[in-house]
Amino acid sequence: MNDIFTARGSVLIAGATINGSTVDIAIDETGTIAGIGEGIRREYDADVVIDGSDRLAVPGLVNTHTHAAMTLLRGYGDDMPLQEWLSQKIWPLEAHLSGDDVYWGTKLACLEMIKSGTVAFNDMYFFMDRAAQAVDDMGLRATLAYGFIDLGNAEKREAEIRATEALVSHVKSLGNPRIKAAVGPHSIYTVSPEGLRWCANFAEEQGIGIHVHLSETEKEVVDCVAQFGKRPAALLDDCGCLTPRTVAAHCCWLDEAECRLLGERGVSASHNPASNMKLAVNRAMPYHWLKQHGANVCLGTDGCASNNSLDLMEEMKFAALLQKFAWNSPTLLPAGEAVAMATRAGARALGTGPGTLTTGAPADIVLLDARATCNTPLHHTDSNIVYACNGGAVMTVLCQGRVLMHERTVPGEEEIVREAAAAARALVGRAREA
Amino acid sequence: MNDIFTARGSVLIAGATINGSTVDIAIDETGTIAGIGEGIRREYDADVVIDGSDRLAVPGLVNTHTHAAMTLLRGYGDDMPLQEWLSQKIWPLEAHLSGDDVYWGTKLACLEMIKSGTVAFNDMYFFMDRAAQAVDDMGLRATLAYGFIDLGNAEKREAEIRATEALVSHVKSLGNPRIKAAVGPHSIYTVSPEGLRWCANFAEEQGIGIHVHLSETEKEVVDCVAQFGKRPAALLDDCGCLTPRTVAAHCCWLDEAECRLLGERGVSASHNPASNMKLAVNRAMPYHWLKQHGANVCLGTDGCASNNSLDLMEEMKFAALLQKFAWNSPTLLPAGEAVAMATRAGARALGTGPGTLTTGAPADIVLLDARATCNTPLHHTDSNIVYACNGGAVMTVLCQGRVLMHERTVPGEEEIVREAAAAARALVGRAREA
Repeated sequence: MNDIFTARGSVLIAGATINGSTVDIAIDETGTIAGIGEGIRREYDADVVIDGSDRLAVPGLVNTHTHAAMTLLRGYGDDMPLQEWLSQKIWPLEAHLSGDDVYWGTKLACLEMIKSGTVAFNDMYFFMDRAAQAVDDMGLRATLAYGFIDLGNAEKREAEIRATEALVSHVKSLGNPRIKAAVGPHSIYTVSPEGLRWCANFAEEQGIGIHVHLSETEKEVVDCVAQFGKRPAALLDDCGCLTPRTVAAHCCWLDEAECRLLGERGVSASHNPASNMKLAVNRAMPYHWLKQHGANVCLGTDGCASNNSLDLMEEMKFAALLQKFAWNSPTLLPAGEAVAMATRAGARALGTGPGTLTTGAPADIVLLDARATCNTPLHHTDSNIVYACNGGAVMTVLCQGRVLMHERTVPGEEEIVREAAAAARALVGRAREA
Repeated sequence: MNDIFTARGSVLIAGATINGSTVDIAIDETGTIAGIGEGIRREYDADVVIDGSDRLAVPGLVNTHTHAAMTLLRGYGDDMPLQEWLSQKIWPLEAHLSGDDVYWGTKLACLEMIKSGTVAFNDMYFFMDRAAQAVDDMGLRATLAYGFIDLGNAEKREAEIRATEALVSHVKSLGNPRIKAAVGPHSIYTVSPEGLRWCANFAEEQGIGIHVHLSETEKEVVDCVAQFGKRPAALLDDCGCLTPRTVAAHCCWLDEAECRLLGERGVSASHNPASNMKLAVNRAMPYHWLKQHGANVCLGTDGCASNNSLDLMEEMKFAALLQKFAWNSPTLLPAGEAVAMATRAGARALGTGPGTLTTGAPADIVLLDARATCNTPLHHTDSNIVYACNGGAVMTVLCQGRVLMHERTVPGEEEIVREAAAAARALVGRAREA
């Protein structure tokens, strides 16, 4: 069994089900889908053969907004008002966070994501060189941004600039095609316009992405209008931060003009329904306007301190249900669109391919258990995926043709769980002593 | 391994974790918890010993509103307005439903519930003698009601009365202490006041429960006020249907006076957040008022055509998040209260015991995987259960001391999935031919 995880040659998935048809999927040595169809197995001599019987093949999921290492804070503080939660629970713990914590926290996050079908994620946090190490170990894709926060202070801005440059340079030096750097201006309320402009220019110069929080709360909008005389999206646009390489997380309080602006600029808007509900932000992302105006609406879980799960299968259901409830329309965000958010739109946001199972696409493939209760009966696959299944139905995960999980086994799982739990306990201990 | 499922003697769960402490749980021959504490294993000579290492023991979950056999309709119609969905998808299929369909659909539902930690459910549907057979086979608890709908027609009312009497008499004849009958007046908009009064009287005479839908939509309230000059809860109360034996499902559109009335009458209010969101009912159950006025707020999934899952672990998260979002308060329905809804409140609603792990309580016990990513780290168990875990973390389930699942194996699973899938396909075929 261990072979399958270390093998680096060609792969054949024999007899998997895609949209009701039984097909073989051939994957070449570079991890690219070489062909999909009936009877390919008779001609394709693969190094690794995976039995696709009783398996539904779907594209790997893409999580477009995470703070992966915050898995260590999962369940440390809940059910509190935002400011109290941040100041009493999150910040005191984060003050004691070490590089090793970020390494094990990110590894735990990668494990959890792989086990629920995610092959790529868009992360913003600290000690991102250690996050890169964790991603490199685990074999999935990530776009990593250092969370840039200058609070209007020029000295702090210089330090953030240096930290951002260092991460981008470090990620390039890794030479891992699955790992990219992005610039991570935290938000318009934590980064000055000067800082935002530097981020936009640096990202353009480097040809890399921008990862930013946008209009999560009403307070952000009200304060922005009071301080700058314009709404947050307009301020970001003034600073050059709205680009086709930009992922804007949350987007709860956008008005229609801002949605049009995001559409015009080709921005990806990451919907984070569970986090928004848990923190009671009081408005759901206006999906209908973003869709109408052509923004790329994708899906994210946010960090584990405010969700508290990284299961994107579950998040699809939250998205499809929250949109219906919040905008009072049972037809809004149907199952097929929720799947597209988590696959095609996510892949577009992070530039990881088409996010489809098609010849020439990277072999980022998830095999679901077709015999699970959640897939019984199977009247419409997209409906089962979104409304009935959670990550527990994911059996096998491939990223760029490499097997990350097979039959729910991920190499090294026990060590990751043990070390991450120990890191979390020690972190709480250090915070208590301080 | 099969022994563990057929054994009928005493059971010892050795070294499980409850609220951070490692304890043994002794269960006697009658399926009652005989003792919980450290070191019990040294004195207790049990017929079956279950290793509780790396397991969190929690009370079995109780699903207080289901239409179990509707698992066969899972994913058959979604993302549609309520009336269109009912008239174009649900009713045409239900017109062809057979007793065998209900048997296999209910068995599939029982399997799904057991696999996600549910030990008891409150069901309303048709062919309920066949549902009883499925529950009897599967070993969990159920309260079964025939869905009583007279549409104001005296002749139809007589037929519904006979069907209700027949079910109650049939369930009594089974002599299965885990299976109870209830009276199931569908709602105030499908049952006449005469029908409601008969249901209330018959339930009182028999000493059995009442299972009713209440204020799911605004239309129900508006129409009720127009027709009867009072709101739905008041109408139910006039007809004698609000009792401590009553479970009222949904309760989305209750006003505060109705919440007070439910509290005064000792009614159980079943919150069904995923269904309410999916069908866009435009208001969440006013949990704060129901709690304030002393109603017993419990949790339910509704049927699989409108959720589309029976995973109560997932439903706890939907409840805790929907309440926060809909009522704009991040402190509303904290994790501990969500767990209580799914355990103690549910057990009270169905009269299945205290719903706690305490000496003298029925041994309805769920063992969760403490080494799952969703339980890593484990700062606060209730938080992990509600916000991070789904049914996939459930490893072992006992109902009245009998092992229904162990290490995720449920006897007969393959046959149930195969037969239920076949029944669903045949049902759709019959509906298409008609």
